[in-house]
Amino acid sequence: MGMGTAQSLLKAGFDVVGCEINPEGRARFEAAGGRATASPVEAAEGATALVVMVVNAAQTDAVLFGDEGAAKALPAGAVIISSVTMAPDDARALGSKAAALGVRYLDAPMSGGAGRAATGQLTIMGSGSPESFAAARPVLSAIAEKVYELGDEPGMGASFKIVNQLLAGVHIAAACEAIAFASKLGLDLEQVYKVIAASAGNSWMFENRVPHILAGDYQPLSAVDIFTKDLGIVTGIGQKEKFPLTIASSALQMFIATAAAGMGRDDDSSVARLLAMITGIELPTAKPD
Amino acid sequence: MGMGTAQSLLKAGFDVVGCEINPEGRARFEAAGGRATASPVEAAEGATALVVMVVNAAQTDAVLFGDEGAAKALPAGAVIISSVTMAPDDARALGSKAAALGVRYLDAPMSGGAGRAATGQLTIMGSGSPESFAAARPVLSAIAEKVYELGDEPGMGASFKIVNQLLAGVHIAAACEAIAFASKLGLDLEQVYKVIAASAGNSWMFENRVPHILAGDYQPLSAVDIFTKDLGIVTGIGQKEKFPLTIASSALQMFIATAAAGMGRDDDSSVARLLAMITGIELPTAKPD
Repeated sequence: MGMGTAQSLLKAGFDVVGCEINPEGRARFEAAGGRATASPVEAAEGATALVVMVVNAAQTDAVLFGDEGAAKALPAGAVIISSVTMAPDDARALGSKAAALGVRYLDAPMSGGAGRAATGQLTIMGSGSPESFAAARPVLSAIAEKVYELGDEPGMGASFKIVNQLLAGVHIAAACEAIAFASKLGLDLEQVYKVIAASAGNSWMFENRVPHILAGDYQPLSAVDIFTKDLGIVTGIGQKEKFPLTIASSALQMFIATAAAGMGRDDDSSVARLLAMITGIELPTAKPD
Repeated sequence: MGMGTAQSLLKAGFDVVGCEINPEGRARFEAAGGRATASPVEAAEGATALVVMVVNAAQTDAVLFGDEGAAKALPAGAVIISSVTMAPDDARALGSKAAALGVRYLDAPMSGGAGRAATGQLTIMGSGSPESFAAARPVLSAIAEKVYELGDEPGMGASFKIVNQLLAGVHIAAACEAIAFASKLGLDLEQVYKVIAASAGNSWMFENRVPHILAGDYQPLSAVDIFTKDLGIVTGIGQKEKFPLTIASSALQMFIATAAAGMGRDDDSSVARLLAMITGIELPTAKPD
């Protein structure tokens, strides 16, 4: 279950069934007023929309079209809202499987992270038939601040998300590299943050992630492993399509190295900690509670 | 001469002597109401502030402290405002030479490009003695929107600029990589610009440079060769200080490749054209006048 999204839907007045294999997650969602189940089929029964937030295309395929898959249990007219970052070819293949069952399917990857999911302020990069958009719109309005309608077939949404993740991943790794290097140069990192955020070197990710480094707080809002996965998808497409992605590949290697050093489940700003570990520079440490 | 800066000073009412070896540049500045010379010594005589905008630290050293250098010709109390992007060690060395002559020296690299120079909206990352700042402030106010005072010795300004250029260079190369890849994925590039500029993948450079690609206009506002130089300085410091700069090095290689393909003097968004040349993707072409 995407907990933030499920809670945003609850707040908007939807009758929400959260599907989650982890019993603690189910208990948390029930405590928040929702219904919970461990069965995708149970979640699908009677639903007008099924939001899929799992890890990758293979899991999406399994929960929708596997032996215990949800797609067959959906009522007529219901729509699948597929939110996982995946290769456009995978989004197209899943869309075709849904079409073969007569089920509406929206390719609808999301951007904004857990924070914006909880406040209903995600950005959605959607593509699918007009009927799929029409069926999905009430749900999308409740969870997203911005909904882009990018084409009438699955695959376009996934492609836009891929381009976004290429940049997001590079910008996070570059922000970490720059801040660690600034420490090496002896600069005041709070001042670096303030000056760069107001200068041509700024990025959305620099502004968003560097405060984690300044606070010494690497509890995962978005984990390193998300970007080893997402930049892996990006560079995998590059390899398949024979398109050189020099910068994205370098950023991927930095995330892989950070995961290799044991920080895969920590915040993605941990690339800065990797550089501190390698070079011996000092970064801020968390204040005791 | 930094033409934009010189014109901003004229507009602010300063008596400005522009020093320029190119006769056309001198003629342009005279036509704009300024005085012009080819001699650094002549520019320095009687000046209360000397803004140095050349290519690198070696040129700064030559125009200030060479046989025909300007520093010795400056009146008592005048300040040198050194604006070139250079390694912090070079900024410190130049500051020491100025101090040995009893001349005030401000380490004051600038950010914002030719466009913001012409409108007096640069960002200045300055460091130097309180006396140097006091002497320089009237000039800085006329050419910059933001003046950061980052320390009381030369070197700190240069260090901040280096960190900014690391990020700026990476973000330009990444923006070009992402837009070229989006073309490979068959996306509408105008739509990609709009969606990414409003998403977590955005950067100051993405917003600023991608319009050049969309317009097919590679006339240099800031040239590829600026970033082969600036990222060369960044990675050179990394090598000297033994600090790995994986992402910055990759970006540098993309700028070097673009320069190698004959586009060194074109706009730095030409990295996208390099990728188009390599992969055969299509990018927008300039509309005929």
